[in-house]
Amino acid sequence: MTIRFALLGAGRIGKVHAKAITSNPAARLVAVADAMAPAAQAIASQYGCEVRSIEAIAAAKDIDAVVICTPTDTHADLIEQFSTAGKAIFCEKPIDLSVRRVKDCLKVVAANKTTLMVGFNRRFDPHFMAVRKAIDAGEIGEVEMVTIVSRDPGAPPIEYVKRSGGIFRDMTIHDFDMARFLLGEEIETVSAQASVLVDPAIGEAGDYDSVSVMLSTATGKHATISNSRRATYGYDQRIEVHGSVGSVAAENQRAVSIEVANARGYTRPPLYDFFMTRYTQAYANEIATFIDAIGGKAKASPSGEDGLIALALADAAVTSVKEGRAVKVSEVLG
Amino acid sequence: MTIRFALLGAGRIGKVHAKAITSNPAARLVAVADAMAPAAQAIASQYGCEVRSIEAIAAAKDIDAVVICTPTDTHADLIEQFSTAGKAIFCEKPIDLSVRRVKDCLKVVAANKTTLMVGFNRRFDPHFMAVRKAIDAGEIGEVEMVTIVSRDPGAPPIEYVKRSGGIFRDMTIHDFDMARFLLGEEIETVSAQASVLVDPAIGEAGDYDSVSVMLSTATGKHATISNSRRATYGYDQRIEVHGSVGSVAAENQRAVSIEVANARGYTRPPLYDFFMTRYTQAYANEIATFIDAIGGKAKASPSGEDGLIALALADAAVTSVKEGRAVKVSEVLG
Amino acid sequence: MTIRFALLGAGRIGKVHAKAITSNPAARLVAVADAMAPAAQAIASQYGCEVRSIEAIAAAKDIDAVVICTPTDTHADLIEQFSTAGKAIFCEKPIDLSVRRVKDCLKVVAANKTTLMVGFNRRFDPHFMAVRKAIDAGEIGEVEMVTIVSRDPGAPPIEYVKRSGGIFRDMTIHDFDMARFLLGEEIETVSAQASVLVDPAIGEAGDYDSVSVMLSTATGKHATISNSRRATYGYDQRIEVHGSVGSVAAENQRAVSIEVANARGYTRPPLYDFFMTRYTQAYANEIATFIDAIGGKAKASPSGEDGLIALALADAAVTSVKEGRAVKVSEVLG
Amino acid sequence: MTIRFALLGAGRIGKVHAKAITSNPAARLVAVADAMAPAAQAIASQYGCEVRSIEAIAAAKDIDAVVICTPTDTHADLIEQFSTAGKAIFCEKPIDLSVRRVKDCLKVVAANKTTLMVGFNRRFDPHFMAVRKAIDAGEIGEVEMVTIVSRDPGAPPIEYVKRSGGIFRDMTIHDFDMARFLLGEEIETVSAQASVLVDPAIGEAGDYDSVSVMLSTATGKHATISNSRRATYGYDQRIEVHGSVGSVAAENQRAVSIEVANARGYTRPPLYDFFMTRYTQAYANEIATFIDAIGGKAKASPSGEDGLIALALADAAVTSVKEGRAVKVSEVLG
Repeated sequence: MTIRFALLGAGRIGKVHAKAITSNPAARLVAVADAMAPAAQAIASQYGCEVRSIEAIAAAKDIDAVVICTPTDTHADLIEQFSTAGKAIFCEKPIDLSVRRVKDCLKVVAANKTTLMVGFNRRFDPHFMAVRKAIDAGEIGEVEMVTIVSRDPGAPPIEYVKRSGGIFRDMTIHDFDMARFLLGEEIETVSAQASVLVDPAIGEAGDYDSVSVMLSTATGKHATISNSRRATYGYDQRIEVHGSVGSVAAENQRAVSIEVANARGYTRPPLYDFFMTRYTQAYANEIATFIDAIGGKAKASPSGEDGLIALALADAAVTSVKEGRAVKVSEVLG
Repeated sequence: MTIRFALLGAGRIGKVHAKAITSNPAARLVAVADAMAPAAQAIASQYGCEVRSIEAIAAAKDIDAVVICTPTDTHADLIEQFSTAGKAIFCEKPIDLSVRRVKDCLKVVAANKTTLMVGFNRRFDPHFMAVRKAIDAGEIGEVEMVTIVSRDPGAPPIEYVKRSGGIFRDMTIHDFDMARFLLGEEIETVSAQASVLVDPAIGEAGDYDSVSVMLSTATGKHATISNSRRATYGYDQRIEVHGSVGSVAAENQRAVSIEVANARGYTRPPLYDFFMTRYTQAYANEIATFIDAIGGKAKASPSGEDGLIALALADAAVTSVKEGRAVKVSEVLG
Repeated sequence: MTIRFALLGAGRIGKVHAKAITSNPAARLVAVADAMAPAAQAIASQYGCEVRSIEAIAAAKDIDAVVICTPTDTHADLIEQFSTAGKAIFCEKPIDLSVRRVKDCLKVVAANKTTLMVGFNRRFDPHFMAVRKAIDAGEIGEVEMVTIVSRDPGAPPIEYVKRSGGIFRDMTIHDFDMARFLLGEEIETVSAQASVLVDPAIGEAGDYDSVSVMLSTATGKHATISNSRRATYGYDQRIEVHGSVGSVAAENQRAVSIEVANARGYTRPPLYDFFMTRYTQAYANEIATFIDAIGGKAKASPSGEDGLIALALADAAVTSVKEGRAVKVSEVLG
Repeated sequence: MTIRFALLGAGRIGKVHAKAITSNPAARLVAVADAMAPAAQAIASQYGCEVRSIEAIAAAKDIDAVVICTPTDTHADLIEQFSTAGKAIFCEKPIDLSVRRVKDCLKVVAANKTTLMVGFNRRFDPHFMAVRKAIDAGEIGEVEMVTIVSRDPGAPPIEYVKRSGGIFRDMTIHDFDMARFLLGEEIETVSAQASVLVDPAIGEAGDYDSVSVMLSTATGKHATISNSRRATYGYDQRIEVHGSVGSVAAENQRAVSIEVANARGYTRPPLYDFFMTRYTQAYANEIATFIDAIGGKAKASPSGEDGLIALALADAAVTSVKEGRAVKVSEVLG
């Protein structure tokens, strides 16, 4: 069976998913919608699909599933609309910037028994998957301490920053989800500290660019997250899990792995400098899993619930910075 | 302009090229031919192209280029046939096992001014390309000594060994071409030693499974090659170039780069264990370059001449082992 | 000029310093004292020095400097005694487990203008020194985020744990000092979380074995520390400093750096498994610096003040865990 | 029992051994001799030993063993003199530049049953010892192919080159010994090629600066050696052994193992740039083994015979380059 897709949103991440869908033999891209007509048209031309309106897509009989890549403030409404329309839904993170709104939205999804997957692409990175697999295989025993270092090559445009919901909800949210993925246990408390070291304009916009986070679970497992909006050497994406009988780590990735030795030393090239090149395989695996989930061959995971909890962790981090204390997730999630 | 391809030979390497052609937006796979009908049919079904006879392809107006992946003993004849038919030709190495036959064949190609490229895929590996680029950028100064280690995960079937022309013409030939690619200067002498350490059946078939080669150029540059038909840790493919102001090396490649630490030490997974997964990107780049060459946007390189010289180096190595001496390439090439 | 040393305390760490002193051409070990006569005698025999009482050493004219390696609860008293006696003093960390007691002790040291150095050996590790030097050379620009991972191969005996002052004052104290050494700026707030994952007996003794710490400075620089009393793969000692134009990291150390490749992958041996072998060179450099400081050729650094602040950071961490909040260092230091 | 040493030759390598002897608790340096009085005096002053003449040392009753670090052309005579005088002898490589002379010398040693060890220090490097140990433990199965890369940071003074016996007898001789150490089987044939790429003056002196060597054993095992008198990135010393079930390699060594990441990439410092710092531990282990051999607790290995064979391999390499053929070791050794 071929899953027939519509793509909602033809921006940067929309293009990534368009490529993943059209490269997958089990999928077909039937339609694309975008408020900006030229953006939609570009994808339609490149992949031979139709430009349609959101409404037309919701009503269409030749569409099984939608991929939502529109601006964040439209996600929850679209999820509800397409859930009611009976489509399977893949939605980019976050579902919404409000925990309450996400909860309401997920009620609709539950009532309709919609297949919903949330776009935490990193769970599908082959290297991070291999880390998870090593844990499952018992290679490090009981998980004790997770260490995540995640640094962007550079800060996004200040206009993006202003609409982003803040670094915890925009950037750290990926690491919150990764921490849960690796800890295998729910997080109880969040402690965070944050500052502006990269660009004062980010501070003026009310956000931070450098943050540290500590997480703890009911049984006392730890996770730490270190984020910066700047890394001159590329897209720094490392995870390490320390356990009772060993440790497992995923190394950074680069396009070419050569080493030049001379009087200045031994030099390897910088890392991938863009999430799209770094996570190409992850995006492909993610859509493949969504297709499997629609076909009943895989779990629709990460779920809407996973999206909700990651957002709650981000909210808890915001409160922790403001109040200088460890915040319980239950304070946020209720 | 889209280049319309026919694939001649639907075996293991044929499938690799079918995938590379169909993934390239500038190419279209129109037809496939194979003496084994089911093999041709499988590719036709998977990629939606026609099964045709060799003759029909040669006569076809809707075919611009052929990719020759048939058994080695048919290569030279097919090149002549399709050169005369006015098609651009990509041929898997080697063109033939006889230097004389290759020379005759290349005369036909020259007379017809055919675009001909020979399949030394490793020149298109991103890591090896980056090594060449570092040399061209002057990062290591004058090239002095090239070191190539190339080991297969395991020996091929003995029937393959018997038809292969021997390890120097089948396996080392890639390294001869790589040595030339990296030295940037023609090789003058070849010294080789060879033995059977992996499988006595290979020796009984008149071949070797473990060989070492030393090459030298007119200006005294060196290259050494180390080959084995066995490597328990995967497909071992390393090159290193030592120059007057530095050195550059390409590391081995693996599918996932994680590291597990425990009481036994720090362990990374084995390497890719198959040339198709190891060189996926190289095969794609190779076909892309062939397409560019047809369009006049790139040199058709490696050329038929490159194929001839690599074969001559293999012949020289065979003689060197037999006679226990350094053999001049001019003895073979005339 | 040769500095004439007495060693106070002939236990494990005393032996390390005895070796460092006797290997240094600018030093001579004249006397050793220990409540356990056989321990003192063993060092006396090995290095050809005298066994003396504490009092005799304080009164001796042939002693220029003492190295205090006795139990922690004697450190402050001995510092005061030998400061008054006019000796230069090297004291193992911590000076005392009470901030108030340390402050009083340092007043005596100040009044006597005693040369006092505190044993934070890691500042003298060649690799960590090279990290500091890279920062000083501007290679990473402004320091922004320090990441320290420090894990012991195994937990100490439970009797040691009970007398240790707790993991923050015994183990993390090294990392607090390292964070200050690398941040180049005083720490303002401490947030910590702690749990018992390695050995319940440690919890029963009122201590933790797994801790995470976040530190922040006035200008918003960050440091994170991850500690565990268990690491099956050896003595895990890593630091990384992320700055505005780059990052610098010190890798783990092992006795032999070989790699075995086979069907299970590529394996390097475990790390050093003992602080004495891991930090051999650091201990030698430390004593050499102390000797230079006595001779006026180097600063007596880390100083008593450095010891005080590291202890205050440990106290702040203890409070942070108890009260679930970020603790200001000024709350502890006054 | 303390072994009482005399050092013959107070030059560069003499100083290395003086330090190794005086650091070893089982040894005492009693006397030093050198044709250059100030050189001998410097060592005598530093380590508190006497300056004596060769003759006085040979006659002395308070000397058990000598370490010969004089110029090569005196080695064989001194070995015979001290063998007859009943001393244990450690001699720097080579024993002589003439195979015949070495054979005669070893007859005297055999007749006197002298304990004789030859200075192939690399066998005692902890990393290379670990490689040997991994082989002995069966971790790579049957040894099949040894790869040695050995490059000096820079060429020696041309005066040294002239007296050195040529690169094969001066530099490659270490690698010949290492190949034998790792192959565990005698070498049958030697093929070599050599050129002048580093410094024309070396060519004018009748020597080479860049050489490649292939070795084979009776059972078909291979070794390759790559030597250059130049490496801008430090003292390049790598070995790798490929076997039937795996491979083991020793990595290069550097004084500090940090890595700086920035926009130019990830850079580790250059390697050790001097044999004395690179092989500090090897020299200490070597003398310790010699002391054990005197005490009957270890084999006197590498032996005079090992020195003879390594020289024969060098002679064979010289012939191979001249005559462009594989040379049998039996042609040289008789």
